[in-house]
Amino acid sequence: MTDITMIRAAAERLNGHARRTPLLSSPFLDEIAGRRVLVKPECLQHTGSFKYRGGRSAVSALDPDTRSKGVIAYSSGNHAQGVALAAREFGIPAVIIMPADAPRLKIDNTRALGAEVVLYDRAGGESREAIGETLTAERGLTLIKPYDEPQVIAGQGTCGLEIAEQASAEGVEAGDVLVCCGGGGLTSGIALALEAEAPGLRARPVEPEGFDDTARSLRSGHVETNTAASGNICDAILTPAPGQITFPILKRLCGPGLVVGEDEALHAMALAFQRLKVVAEPGGAVALAAALFRPAQIDGDAVICTISGGNVDAAMFKRALDQHGT
Amino acid sequence: MTDITMIRAAAERLNGHARRTPLLSSPFLDEIAGRRVLVKPECLQHTGSFKYRGGRSAVSALDPDTRSKGVIAYSSGNHAQGVALAAREFGIPAVIIMPADAPRLKIDNTRALGAEVVLYDRAGGESREAIGETLTAERGLTLIKPYDEPQVIAGQGTCGLEIAEQASAEGVEAGDVLVCCGGGGLTSGIALALEAEAPGLRARPVEPEGFDDTARSLRSGHVETNTAASGNICDAILTPAPGQITFPILKRLCGPGLVVGEDEALHAMALAFQRLKVVAEPGGAVALAAALFRPAQIDGDAVICTISGGNVDAAMFKRALDQHGT
Repeated sequence: MTDITMIRAAAERLNGHARRTPLLSSPFLDEIAGRRVLVKPECLQHTGSFKYRGGRSAVSALDPDTRSKGVIAYSSGNHAQGVALAAREFGIPAVIIMPADAPRLKIDNTRALGAEVVLYDRAGGESREAIGETLTAERGLTLIKPYDEPQVIAGQGTCGLEIAEQASAEGVEAGDVLVCCGGGGLTSGIALALEAEAPGLRARPVEPEGFDDTARSLRSGHVETNTAASGNICDAILTPAPGQITFPILKRLCGPGLVVGEDEALHAMALAFQRLKVVAEPGGAVALAAALFRPAQIDGDAVICTISGGNVDAAMFKRALDQHGT
Repeated sequence: MTDITMIRAAAERLNGHARRTPLLSSPFLDEIAGRRVLVKPECLQHTGSFKYRGGRSAVSALDPDTRSKGVIAYSSGNHAQGVALAAREFGIPAVIIMPADAPRLKIDNTRALGAEVVLYDRAGGESREAIGETLTAERGLTLIKPYDEPQVIAGQGTCGLEIAEQASAEGVEAGDVLVCCGGGGLTSGIALALEAEAPGLRARPVEPEGFDDTARSLRSGHVETNTAASGNICDAILTPAPGQITFPILKRLCGPGLVVGEDEALHAMALAFQRLKVVAEPGGAVALAAALFRPAQIDGDAVICTISGGNVDAAMFKRALDQHGT
């Protein structure tokens, strides 16, 4: 199980590889939120999302013989690119199983990072697990899960170590840390890091309306599932339920979840463009949206939030600017 | 005259105030350029451009009695916001003289940062200098020039100190550092910092077509002037000629200037969006454009370039995405 020792070890392995993202702010955002807003822009991480941290952590933690045979991941998005880059850096094969209807750009990017992309027909009933198991057995690949994997959680936790240090440098020792939450890898990793390094800071998951499985699970105390599997622009963080490994961590350490609407995510994207000069994808903007538009649900003089990724196409970004740009 | 001692002193004064911007990169940009491309995104600096460094440096260098009376600046853009924020941090008055036809957003932002904005009628022949001199005499304000001011150059030079250190950490000890260039404050400051801290790195100005006064001045050896004063989307870096203080520094230390077209600046903005997840304004994207689209004019295995600012409105950003987005 992931603990602070594993997170610190992951930070050692990521040192010189993962980017130390800055902590951004704008007086204009502070004014909207009614308190200081500090933003951790993981969109500036390699491959455009925090997923590189977990991918590199997991790949670097494998024993060299196992690693040399290669890794495999299921992903239509950010995890694919994070694992692909980490594998390329180690000079090992990476197989990424993606739905054939995934955005062309994400398929192309994953291939350009050196991965072998295997497409499956989601609608036609092909099982990605069956394809993956066959490939894994044939080639001796190691599966890198997107969140329910201790070394992936440890890698995402390195983001929390940085937040603890950077918040302290800003004089912020207490308050909420809002985290864009899908399966809970980033949220649980950050929560573990804060428990050890900044006990006055509390991680809280933020999800899109209709996909608030983690918020509901935290309320009920056991894993709750979403009814829909798609149909929201926050594609990067649409997962059916919190993970079996991540949920116990979330339950022990996190404050209540927050939920925002699609239009609020778009609004936060436009404000990140205008005030922070960074590119957020819809799922990566939900925590900033909560920081700005849910002030009554947040405690403290300052709030910290992640922008978890920026892999958004031009059409969606223009939609945000059209609806909320100036 | 600005020297490395002044730049180091400015760095001390800016410590804990200016943001240390990261050094970004993308394998996709490396592939376009045919070499490693390292990008210093000063769009992530406070107020959205490097100008805060110079503004804070100059304001903090004033003796307290003089400073307490306030400062004044002429600017339609980024320098205004940099000086306004620095003045607010010191709790002193700032008067910014802006053309009445400046973008409403820039006027509003400057006011929101606490500055008193005095508008003048550019077309009607009002002299901003006459207005400024009257206000200065009446109130004892100190003028903060945008580039031809040693403490402003020293502040911009702190960006060069960071580049020297960050490039070394990336294993880059030699090569060109491309700098978006208007009056030459950032370029000369970076050049001085590199001379002392990274002598294998050479600063080179990058300008828009039709406004290549610095490139021509470097060729001829004396100050050359642009014929046009406006009419290019790279508004942040349209200056009539290199400064009287900046040009001797540029002449002594810089490599040849590079020149890019408006459409290339828009293309670089779209690539910064797609590959780096940062927002560049047109004038802030010219150095990246040169790094990507002028490979034959650049030496070395790696090139470093600044993104000097990101204060662009949604309409112009959408234009970049429409013409070059994917």
